[in-house]
Amino acid sequence: MRRDLLGALAPWARNTRASTIQQLLTLVPRPGQISLALGLPAVETFPARELAQAAREILEAEPTALQYGPPFEPLKHQVAALMSRRGAPCRPEQVFLTAGAQQGMSLLARLLLEYRGSVVTEERIYTGLQQVIEPFEPDVRTVATDLAAGMDVEAVAVQLARHPPPAFVYVIPDGHNPLAVGISVGRRRELAELARRFGVPVIEDDPYGLLQYDGPPVPPVRAWDDEWVFYVGSFSKILAPALRAGWLVVPEILVPRLEVAKEAADINAAPFTQRVISRLLDTISIDSHLDALRGIYRARRDAMLSALGRHFPEEARWRRPAAGLFVWVELPGVPDTLEALRSGIEREGVTFLPGEAFEVHAGRRSHAGIRLNFSHVSCDQIEEGVARLGRVLKRALVAPPSTQPQEQSR
Amino acid sequence: MRRDLLGALAPWARNTRASTIQQLLTLVPRPGQISLALGLPAVETFPARELAQAAREILEAEPTALQYGPPFEPLKHQVAALMSRRGAPCRPEQVFLTAGAQQGMSLLARLLLEYRGSVVTEERIYTGLQQVIEPFEPDVRTVATDLAAGMDVEAVAVQLARHPPPAFVYVIPDGHNPLAVGISVGRRRELAELARRFGVPVIEDDPYGLLQYDGPPVPPVRAWDDEWVFYVGSFSKILAPALRAGWLVVPEILVPRLEVAKEAADINAAPFTQRVISRLLDTISIDSHLDALRGIYRARRDAMLSALGRHFPEEARWRRPAAGLFVWVELPGVPDTLEALRSGIEREGVTFLPGEAFEVHAGRRSHAGIRLNFSHVSCDQIEEGVARLGRVLKRALVAPPSTQPQEQSR
Repeated sequence: MRRDLLGALAPWARNTRASTIQQLLTLVPRPGQISLALGLPAVETFPARELAQAAREILEAEPTALQYGPPFEPLKHQVAALMSRRGAPCRPEQVFLTAGAQQGMSLLARLLLEYRGSVVTEERIYTGLQQVIEPFEPDVRTVATDLAAGMDVEAVAVQLARHPPPAFVYVIPDGHNPLAVGISVGRRRELAELARRFGVPVIEDDPYGLLQYDGPPVPPVRAWDDEWVFYVGSFSKILAPALRAGWLVVPEILVPRLEVAKEAADINAAPFTQRVISRLLDTISIDSHLDALRGIYRARRDAMLSALGRHFPEEARWRRPAAGLFVWVELPGVPDTLEALRSGIEREGVTFLPGEAFEVHAGRRSHAGIRLNFSHVSCDQIEEGVARLGRVLKRALVAPPSTQPQEQSR
Repeated sequence: MRRDLLGALAPWARNTRASTIQQLLTLVPRPGQISLALGLPAVETFPARELAQAAREILEAEPTALQYGPPFEPLKHQVAALMSRRGAPCRPEQVFLTAGAQQGMSLLARLLLEYRGSVVTEERIYTGLQQVIEPFEPDVRTVATDLAAGMDVEAVAVQLARHPPPAFVYVIPDGHNPLAVGISVGRRRELAELARRFGVPVIEDDPYGLLQYDGPPVPPVRAWDDEWVFYVGSFSKILAPALRAGWLVVPEILVPRLEVAKEAADINAAPFTQRVISRLLDTISIDSHLDALRGIYRARRDAMLSALGRHFPEEARWRRPAAGLFVWVELPGVPDTLEALRSGIEREGVTFLPGEAFEVHAGRRSHAGIRLNFSHVSCDQIEEGVARLGRVLKRALVAPPSTQPQEQSR
């Protein structure tokens, strides 16, 4: 009997479709709309002129930069220097260069996770990690998040004590996506200790760690254990996303295995952009660049917090995020934030990401809320966007959507 | 009981290590050595100046080129135009942009292959496909290759008739890697017909299809069926590898699913280089560029064939490859081509790839031989390299390596 094309696909792929985030990505350029939705860095911070200069110099001096070749060694040393700034020094031999943090997580999952294995995550996490593990049809064991101190480490301990142990624990240490929390120093230490005690790796996803805005920066979990904590870094938020470059910091013994996994994924040849980034880091002051970035984002964060106080309904709750690109707003009286998004787009021309987009198990989570981005919008747009959104949410509180079945949504 | 780090890895990853090809990649720059090993394009053909110009213009005019954003639409149209040149026209909506052919295959395998599923390949194939499927622990059913007409299509038919059917058939239509053969037109038609009849996808890996050197070019298998044949294309061999860019041509229904798979792999944001390639294709004549490439590689191929005739032992057998970057040489009297490689490196300073490197099932194949690359070396180097290698092989024939157990290899 002849199969149709979808019947020829692996089970996970038959019913899959683009994520909410991916769909919203196509909405960005709509004129007049203010997007507080996506985690985009600010275009005006990209070192475009310096990158053009670096690209030209490299192509003039060494056309072999366009050939297949091993990962660009000098960049590993520069990443090690960056890790010292981050508070978790490492050796260049522990650095593995990737095509961005997402690839880093994808490769680590491939190394660690067996088909139908288990992993431990919080109830709401970056959707990219969920996409990474989906084809493994994993058993995802979730733990709660304290919005002041981060991941529930005692609940993690319970999961790690089970047999067989999970393949890994997934952690976002600073500027949590979407919950905007940083893990407390005490919990970082405990997490590292748990990983060591039970022999279960922690994947530490840290795209925002160099974007801490208040007081002395907190080091990542990896600072407390360099064997069991595998660090995922990214140039996307500190230089520019379209360079597609990031890194892992792992025990040296994993590097040859990551090489095999990356060969399978995309050859593990150094892309031209590794050399461009390396030359850029040689020519600019990364400290000044990061200071400037932090200054811009700190101002936008503060503008958002101030606007929230003026425009949001009084039921709403939020905290000041110490790092990253987001504010998480709890909305106890708003039963359906996806409906609020629809209303925001149609009536007010404002977008955000509903908490539902991040749920590992639909409906199973401790609190309802929305994620607002402040990095990709000017302070004026933040004021206007939050005002618009405030009106949407106040309407949602006055007239909550019908709980009766709606025909078109069936 | 506490586990050690390797015990925490997925089974496939515990004993894995870098491939022969990856290890040899690090050997390229050794001075004085002539490498006929890797499938590298010629650096002097890279449009470095034009790329630098394109990069500068883009970064000056549109810094948003460095932002996250959807795949670059104009490049899909340009790929469709390239596919017409290739003899298999398609619509831009059927084009999916990748970070190179390897990623294209990795994404397709993820879509098609279940854990412990089966696939059909030839006995010797591109190692990258083997790395792609390895973590699925697949049942790989191999068919023989006719060195004049390509894949044994009757054997493929036998495999497709089995239940359950394999996840896909893997095919290299032109300039086969490593066997340097092109599939006959009749067999292409039969393969497409089989895919249709049994409802089993063909993954057509075609990095060399635009590098055909003799007579009118043969269209790819996809020209005979655009539903069941999934085409994998690459800019690596026709522009430059370090741009990390390629494409798939698939039925439209698969595109959203590939988007999900690529999001998981590396976000599916357009890398900056997609825009650079698009602008390059707008400014150069791709026909002139391909003509020039073919001219250079044709001359090198002919230089290699001529040198083989003069320097190789008379037991050796080869054919003139109509496409691609390789000559495949059968060596009936040489029992161990890996040993010959060692000898070539140590005694003569010449490298090649032993046939063993490509075996899907070690030892199970119809004929022994080696793969020689002619694209990355000048005609003078080809003459010298083949002469050196001829000496190595003649020695191997006179004094074959001991078949007694050797202590250090145990």
